[in-house]
Amino acid sequence: MYRPNEDYLKLPGSYLFSTIGKKVNAYTEANPDKKIIRLGIGDVTQPLCPAVIKALHEAVDEQASADSFRGYAPDLGYEFLRHAMAENDFRARGCDIADDEVFISDGAKSDSANIQEIFARNSKIAVCDPVYPVYVDSNVMAGRCGEYDANSGVWSNVIYMPCTSENGFAPDYPTETPDIIYLCFPNNPTGAAITKDRLQGWVDYANKVGAVIIFDAAYEAYISEEDIPHSIFECEGARTCAIELRSFSKNAGFTGLRLAATVIPHDLKVKVEGTEIEMHSLWARRHGTKYNGAPYIVQKAGAACYTDEGKAQLKEMVATYMKNAHFIYDGLSEAGYEVYGGKNSPYVWLKTPNNMTSWEYFDYLLEKAGVVGTPGSGFGPSGEHYFRLTAFGSYQNSVEAIDRIKKI
Amino acid sequence: MYRPNEDYLKLPGSYLFSTIGKKVNAYTEANPDKKIIRLGIGDVTQPLCPAVIKALHEAVDEQASADSFRGYAPDLGYEFLRHAMAENDFRARGCDIADDEVFISDGAKSDSANIQEIFARNSKIAVCDPVYPVYVDSNVMAGRCGEYDANSGVWSNVIYMPCTSENGFAPDYPTETPDIIYLCFPNNPTGAAITKDRLQGWVDYANKVGAVIIFDAAYEAYISEEDIPHSIFECEGARTCAIELRSFSKNAGFTGLRLAATVIPHDLKVKVEGTEIEMHSLWARRHGTKYNGAPYIVQKAGAACYTDEGKAQLKEMVATYMKNAHFIYDGLSEAGYEVYGGKNSPYVWLKTPNNMTSWEYFDYLLEKAGVVGTPGSGFGPSGEHYFRLTAFGSYQNSVEAIDRIKKI
Repeated sequence: MYRPNEDYLKLPGSYLFSTIGKKVNAYTEANPDKKIIRLGIGDVTQPLCPAVIKALHEAVDEQASADSFRGYAPDLGYEFLRHAMAENDFRARGCDIADDEVFISDGAKSDSANIQEIFARNSKIAVCDPVYPVYVDSNVMAGRCGEYDANSGVWSNVIYMPCTSENGFAPDYPTETPDIIYLCFPNNPTGAAITKDRLQGWVDYANKVGAVIIFDAAYEAYISEEDIPHSIFECEGARTCAIELRSFSKNAGFTGLRLAATVIPHDLKVKVEGTEIEMHSLWARRHGTKYNGAPYIVQKAGAACYTDEGKAQLKEMVATYMKNAHFIYDGLSEAGYEVYGGKNSPYVWLKTPNNMTSWEYFDYLLEKAGVVGTPGSGFGPSGEHYFRLTAFGSYQNSVEAIDRIKKI
Repeated sequence: MYRPNEDYLKLPGSYLFSTIGKKVNAYTEANPDKKIIRLGIGDVTQPLCPAVIKALHEAVDEQASADSFRGYAPDLGYEFLRHAMAENDFRARGCDIADDEVFISDGAKSDSANIQEIFARNSKIAVCDPVYPVYVDSNVMAGRCGEYDANSGVWSNVIYMPCTSENGFAPDYPTETPDIIYLCFPNNPTGAAITKDRLQGWVDYANKVGAVIIFDAAYEAYISEEDIPHSIFECEGARTCAIELRSFSKNAGFTGLRLAATVIPHDLKVKVEGTEIEMHSLWARRHGTKYNGAPYIVQKAGAACYTDEGKAQLKEMVATYMKNAHFIYDGLSEAGYEVYGGKNSPYVWLKTPNNMTSWEYFDYLLEKAGVVGTPGSGFGPSGEHYFRLTAFGSYQNSVEAIDRIKKI
């Protein structure tokens, strides 16, 4: 008799966004004439840039003719894209990354969920709190996280590293030693960046205790300040302890096109019964067995992001969102809020006023201003009393939202 | 100290296609003037059809404008595609499948590799022998298959169901009861189809013993004979025991575009501590946590396959490949070979002459005719003394290959 994977059944329902949806619907029904402004969404709104559109049309035309038709892509990605990424995202910044250490995929969500598979089942993970839920949930599904406590919202076998205003939203080293450490900087949801010194500290720590850092760099294009690393491979020693996740979603607006990459250096290796095993080879094996490559036309679109034209257009796209982020950040500061993020990130993270819970503030903001954001507690216990607004809307809506918030 | 997933390390190297590559290279170096014809390839060669190209260009243009831009797709697929598939592939054939039972994904390889995740870790799988390697390898990676015996090429904890000319390449019920049964008809690599009666027998068997059938229908568009089911849901009772995998790779040439679907009926459910659990909800959860949807432009391309224009063009594409298959099948028969497949499938499966092993015949065919195929033993022990040729090349090459084979 077949049985389900009971680890799946341990997952609590995804109440965060469905609860938000229900509350918004109820408000809309009760106030049909009021316009809602959504600053909770993590999806982009600007269209794909002209260089990408041009590359897509050209690649589609190639697929229309037998002479230029491309079938199965190489499992690990086309050389032209692996090279462009290794060259532009890494070697141009002084990071020692070879073309064949870049694995192309259909998204950083898939990669961040799948990467745990190449590690032992009894690995202990450490995550920031608050955190992007995929890191934890994918490990729950793999049976690594123990039991869930619905009251506290924590799993018994996960190491949580609180990130609050007290530590500048950069975690302290945990007291218990983890096997796998998930770090995301610039961070979702807090919008916090990490300095190079502090990230170097994490690399040194991981090398010392024999842990791997899964470094999610999905928001690196939003970095505007000096001394904030764009890649963990800017740190010395990262080749022996780090894996980096890259995404085209937020820098190039590929959320609906799907393209990402994972970087695993050959130096990330571990001895098993006297033989050195490269984690690179395990991930290559996973790609070869469970994946058939990202679409040719999408990989061509990705390559267009690295042309001079593409680079200039993406810079402009990011600047547009950052204009919103700055406006939201400054407006909330002026209104007396304690505000974080927004400088190197499209996310603004605010402390709720008057010690409101995250959900109390959600209701308050919806009721009084018709603005929808995301309660910080939805990302983990340490997100309580915080709230996330995103810069992915239009400038006009960002301005109007801040205007309304200032008035209440 | 982090550790790798040691189940990955149990996998033997993928020697099949690398060995083929090495042998072909050696031959080419020794015979630089001789033209090689490759009939081993499982990839398509015809370009995408005009209806699909048109849909892609239109969808790309939508992504170029803020008004029509689409970001994240719904995790489970756009309604327009789920509806088109449910309507055309299932309800039009009398199969009772609802739109929301169709899950859109980036490929049948991913789906066939990932589907095992929603089942208990101690599930016992049964596979045909010979078999598409992904079914077994994905279960090895999940720790379900026991130990590998390099001499016999079998895993200690897998139920193998031999498919040979003796049973018409349709497996007999296993003596040991499995939890999960993988069936693929029309079959890769044997090209065999299964009659509706015989598939109904499997559905009845699965319902009786409480097993799930993972039915891979990737080649259903190649069915030309009556009484061969295009979907397992043509069988009575399949809604309580079956999952079906669908692909756009071989019927529409999407190997480089990536689109597929998995169908899980709501009636596929199992009791856990008194509560009925739908496997549908587990797969939905997997999509929601580990996947971000297939690209909008690719889903629009998929929908174009269901327009009148698209249907006619795909029919023509499949007919072109089938013309090759028939030519290869008939030519080999005339040359005195024992030949199978090729009638409802783009694969022709031949018995090697003079009791040659699959690899001996590979060498013989390469040396004497300059034709490259795939040794049957590479798909499993019962594939020994068989050989696979595919119809995905050009007609001209198929004709020349058969001409050369006839001459030796």
